[in-house]
Amino acid sequence: MSGLRASDLIGRKRDRGTLTAGELGWFVRGYLDESVSDGQMAALLMAGVLNGFTDDEARALTGILVDSGDRMDLSGLPGPTVDKHSTGGVGDGTTLLVAPLVAAAGAQLVKLSGRGLGHTGGTLDKLESIPGLRTDLQPDELVAIAGEVGCVVAAQSDRLVPADRALYALRDVTGTVGSPALIASSVMSKKLAGGAETIVLDVKTGDGAFMDTLEAAVHLAELCVDIGVGAGRRCTALVTDMDQPLGRGIGNALEVREAVELLSVAPAGRLADLSLDLAASLMALAGGREIDAERKRLAGLWADGAALDRLQRMVAAQGGDPAVCERPSEVLPAAPVRRDVEAAAGGYVAALPARAVGELSGALGAGRARKGDPVDPAVGIELRAEVGDRVAAGQPLAVIHARSAEDAEQVAARLLELFTVADEPAEPRPTVLRRVGGPR
Amino acid sequence: MSGLRASDLIGRKRDRGTLTAGELGWFVRGYLDESVSDGQMAALLMAGVLNGFTDDEARALTGILVDSGDRMDLSGLPGPTVDKHSTGGVGDGTTLLVAPLVAAAGAQLVKLSGRGLGHTGGTLDKLESIPGLRTDLQPDELVAIAGEVGCVVAAQSDRLVPADRALYALRDVTGTVGSPALIASSVMSKKLAGGAETIVLDVKTGDGAFMDTLEAAVHLAELCVDIGVGAGRRCTALVTDMDQPLGRGIGNALEVREAVELLSVAPAGRLADLSLDLAASLMALAGGREIDAERKRLAGLWADGAALDRLQRMVAAQGGDPAVCERPSEVLPAAPVRRDVEAAAGGYVAALPARAVGELSGALGAGRARKGDPVDPAVGIELRAEVGDRVAAGQPLAVIHARSAEDAEQVAARLLELFTVADEPAEPRPTVLRRVGGPR
Repeated sequence: MSGLRASDLIGRKRDRGTLTAGELGWFVRGYLDESVSDGQMAALLMAGVLNGFTDDEARALTGILVDSGDRMDLSGLPGPTVDKHSTGGVGDGTTLLVAPLVAAAGAQLVKLSGRGLGHTGGTLDKLESIPGLRTDLQPDELVAIAGEVGCVVAAQSDRLVPADRALYALRDVTGTVGSPALIASSVMSKKLAGGAETIVLDVKTGDGAFMDTLEAAVHLAELCVDIGVGAGRRCTALVTDMDQPLGRGIGNALEVREAVELLSVAPAGRLADLSLDLAASLMALAGGREIDAERKRLAGLWADGAALDRLQRMVAAQGGDPAVCERPSEVLPAAPVRRDVEAAAGGYVAALPARAVGELSGALGAGRARKGDPVDPAVGIELRAEVGDRVAAGQPLAVIHARSAEDAEQVAARLLELFTVADEPAEPRPTVLRRVGGPR
Repeated sequence: MSGLRASDLIGRKRDRGTLTAGELGWFVRGYLDESVSDGQMAALLMAGVLNGFTDDEARALTGILVDSGDRMDLSGLPGPTVDKHSTGGVGDGTTLLVAPLVAAAGAQLVKLSGRGLGHTGGTLDKLESIPGLRTDLQPDELVAIAGEVGCVVAAQSDRLVPADRALYALRDVTGTVGSPALIASSVMSKKLAGGAETIVLDVKTGDGAFMDTLEAAVHLAELCVDIGVGAGRRCTALVTDMDQPLGRGIGNALEVREAVELLSVAPAGRLADLSLDLAASLMALAGGREIDAERKRLAGLWADGAALDRLQRMVAAQGGDPAVCERPSEVLPAAPVRRDVEAAAGGYVAALPARAVGELSGALGAGRARKGDPVDPAVGIELRAEVGDRVAAGQPLAVIHARSAEDAEQVAARLLELFTVADEPAEPRPTVLRRVGGPR
């Protein structure tokens, strides 16, 4: 592919043209070997963000990203191999529930995760609040644990999709994150390199999500599913609500505790419901079965403790203290200060904006502003009420877990302002708003 | 101006917002001290190219570029101090005529020039075809020559507008050259730092120009004049035709020879006309006089040899062989091969696309593809006919000056194809299409 010039390809995208797969591959490989500069890549990305990349370009870019590194080989597992990805929300602890659920149901889930960047911690940060737990596992360890336990959640190796990592670092500082094609190719390249046969995506929409409109979220979901199916995988997506936080714990150890507590009883609440939906989508799609039947089967595995047992075995296999699944409050780190946030007046909770709540948790120390920042596993916010709940004056709406009384005081005042309490009952938006692709 | 983040400012421009002068200054200074990366600057530039920079942003950026380096101090000259800039065309040797004309009329012109980048050489390349002539002059030498002779043309020092140089190098490789605001701020920052009180701009439009439509050229001219006037200078612009080459010589020594030959007789032809218009605009604006009267006075200084005398003195002051102004063909380097291009059939020349002719001259070795490439002073194309001329079959349309018979053969065949010869007489577009600002 000689005779290509980076500035010509940038000019084509600037002038609303499209690039072929060969041209995109030349550009990205040039970026990795430094014959295409940061400035040239950033200019191409900005031109694409503003003028749009086509679905064909997104598909081509996904393949290029996958081809830039190693792929997980899951062929030694009995199967079905499954994977999930969430575009990220607040109080989104679904991985901690979906992983043991599908393992209990007979599938193997090898989930490779990045560090959280933003207001709240990522799945790795949450798991690492469990004393002893390791997420830096080698491919053979991952396959061994998945074979034994059925699920494993670890850090993505540097050898997987290196081009995605390089591009993401540039996008993060150049205002070029927000393109559906770039998001879809980044997400799907990681899932395709991860090696699972069946993939479910949880595309969040609303206040606390990257895709703020339902339309944008549906488009992203469709593009991701299309890329996955085009690459020979079974793939489905749920577009789900992120106007209010999904779970009640928003903080690393708080979310692990919530998962353990949820799995200790019969499934109830929005986080449990969505986790069952995601797991049922995977199992139905992998086995060619009905979602409703799979959902019932999974709810049974949840209620009889089989899922909690899988979580405990996964924690142990990854070096963590398995007692976390029996006495979470004793095993997990606790913040020195707890402070209740009480309703000023009675009424119905009408709104609780997810993003702002996530930012408050981040302000307590649960998230990171920059790559490499440490996160505090113990701090965060524990919600006691959600949209639609009736509350009395003086009733606790939330508990702040903080490093200091001062932190707690500041966050409590701001959190109270975020709760809209109205006289009339409010109906929350359903959690699952749309299903894209996959089984019925 | 603490607390600013480059990615936030990029995001604002991406989302069609505007940046304040303070924010733009922070961004550009950060680029120079490397706290803002190439990728971030390229992303901002691309967002601005696609979403547009406002006139306020262009004005602010101009000031920032000027403030990034030294300014020429022309206050020791008796004045009026004048300067000109052309946005660049093919066969555009106006500087070689305007400089001695205004000097003969009593003004001082200190013209700082960049190297030509593109199909044909820049003014420095043309002048350097004169044996011995130096263009690397220090500020005190420049002022001394301007004081003695009235005109001097030299290379822009690295200490003038360093931010413009850094930005231009990035724009050149990232497809972000084509924004009126970026072009205007680049042009005007150099003129403002150059120190002259009165400035005339020659904004080219048409086939061989960067601004291909008249509308775009007029907008650029208005923006430049507005920036200049806002900075306290007298400023005017002519929007001029570049559908066909302006002069008959297209090549470095060929253009010097043409200038000398033109100045040796009474002014005639499009290149002479435009040079008189530009010089008259400067003198009228500088002295508050009528253009027509100034034009007559300048034509007199031309016809009586005063302008040629100034050119000769300038060449001598810059170390060049002054005999070039008496026997140009003997002093200037000559190409080993000359080849006539003859009309295949009789008729009227209806079109001769400037850009393609320029590229052919570049192919002979007169221009440079990359910064730092050498140019051949001797090669080029000498036109013998222009749009509107009646030609007979076998009559020479042009002479190719080449390094080899092979080069000459190839270029001759392609040049002949570029001449459109029609049965009906064609009227060429006037040279001056619009006047922006300045005297009547």
